[in-house]
Amino acid sequence: LNRIKASGLKLRFCTNETQATREKFVKKLQGLGFDISVEEVTAPAPAACRILKERGLRPHLLVHDDLVPEFAEIDKANPNCVVIGDAAENFTYANLNEAFRVLIGMEKPVLISLGRGRYYKETDGLKLDVGAYMKALEYACDVQAEVVGKPAKMFFESALAEMGVTPEEAIMIGDDIVNDVGGAQQCGMRAVQVRTGKYRPCDENHPFVKPDAYVNNLAEAVDVILQQL
Amino acid sequence: LNRIKASGLKLRFCTNETQATREKFVKKLQGLGFDISVEEVTAPAPAACRILKERGLRPHLLVHDDLVPEFAEIDKANPNCVVIGDAAENFTYANLNEAFRVLIGMEKPVLISLGRGRYYKETDGLKLDVGAYMKALEYACDVQAEVVGKPAKMFFESALAEMGVTPEEAIMIGDDIVNDVGGAQQCGMRAVQVRTGKYRPCDENHPFVKPDAYVNNLAEAVDVILQQL
Repeated sequence: LNRIKASGLKLRFCTNETQATREKFVKKLQGLGFDISVEEVTAPAPAACRILKERGLRPHLLVHDDLVPEFAEIDKANPNCVVIGDAAENFTYANLNEAFRVLIGMEKPVLISLGRGRYYKETDGLKLDVGAYMKALEYACDVQAEVVGKPAKMFFESALAEMGVTPEEAIMIGDDIVNDVGGAQQCGMRAVQVRTGKYRPCDENHPFVKPDAYVNNLAEAVDVILQQL
Repeated sequence: LNRIKASGLKLRFCTNETQATREKFVKKLQGLGFDISVEEVTAPAPAACRILKERGLRPHLLVHDDLVPEFAEIDKANPNCVVIGDAAENFTYANLNEAFRVLIGMEKPVLISLGRGRYYKETDGLKLDVGAYMKALEYACDVQAEVVGKPAKMFFESALAEMGVTPEEAIMIGDDIVNDVGGAQQCGMRAVQVRTGKYRPCDENHPFVKPDAYVNNLAEAVDVILQQL
């Protein structure tokens, strides 16, 4: 990371984290020794806020308590859309019914989902991710959610816009074959998959997505990129 | 109802009720003055039990507490499938994650859903029905649920088998254009829609389902059927 920053290349961290504000997320990474600031992070909640403002939408929120501060500046009175994130313990029967009632009560229901993940792993086991609850509301209200976050094309485009570069000038480094590599390529960027984290050997036979290159870890990705400057 | 029974016609009540045992359901209807017994009721839970026994499946149950007795005779140790019903208050974050973990842990996940309803109305407002939670698990595990209950063809077929009649010999009377009329017709029965209960005038312009006849209420349906004997 330090070598990329020293090279003068522009850098952006794209995360689907929706269980915490960017502030908390960045503090955690700083604690692990990473040189990273809030301004360098592209995350679903601020991207959603931009959409809400642009379209005059007032959200009913079904999100994690720790994410609520990201929506501090947004008018939430008399909601005309529902925003769903990985609400974790807030995915109660009562909260799901409430979000559903708000949505079904609209003439044209608008559902914005902060990601479409199926599930993820925590120390105490696998958990259903926001995508599963998104599907429940989609089915109940017969609507299609607008997904903000990886792999949505719009999400990568806003990261590029924030840096002021074109897709052809950018390269994505990530471990997730569909959400990282597939999403970045769909918006015209080149994409490198690192063989760490979420990487699985079977990714290399993925039916639809083929990375522009593989590397064994982030350091090797940096080597390759700096060599080609 | 009494006139049908007096005529000697065979009769079967097909319900998607999964919040109570047939015993409770029948008691409620008896309390309202209906001449009905448990043996005359075809419901999703007993239909699911038949499938579980036939295929040697041991279910993990995500159902309403009041429905559990219907599964009393079923072996539930070391589950190799998940059965989901309208669990209502039992649709907690913890219970959904648990059902998901059981399912994703199987080599070939088997999900049996007692109905596919989107939502229903109670005195305190609209509630998400089993279909929404079924979709959440389907998406998370990349499986397709097997639906037991209306409008599944198999469900109507088991009601016919219990009476010992062919589809051509039977007629269905119901208020739900898709679940009652559509389901019965798909299995080869004629179907009459009553203009009460769930009926909506727009049903008469339904794009796919057209009842064989309309009646204003159950009494009129009985008139029409008895006239044609």
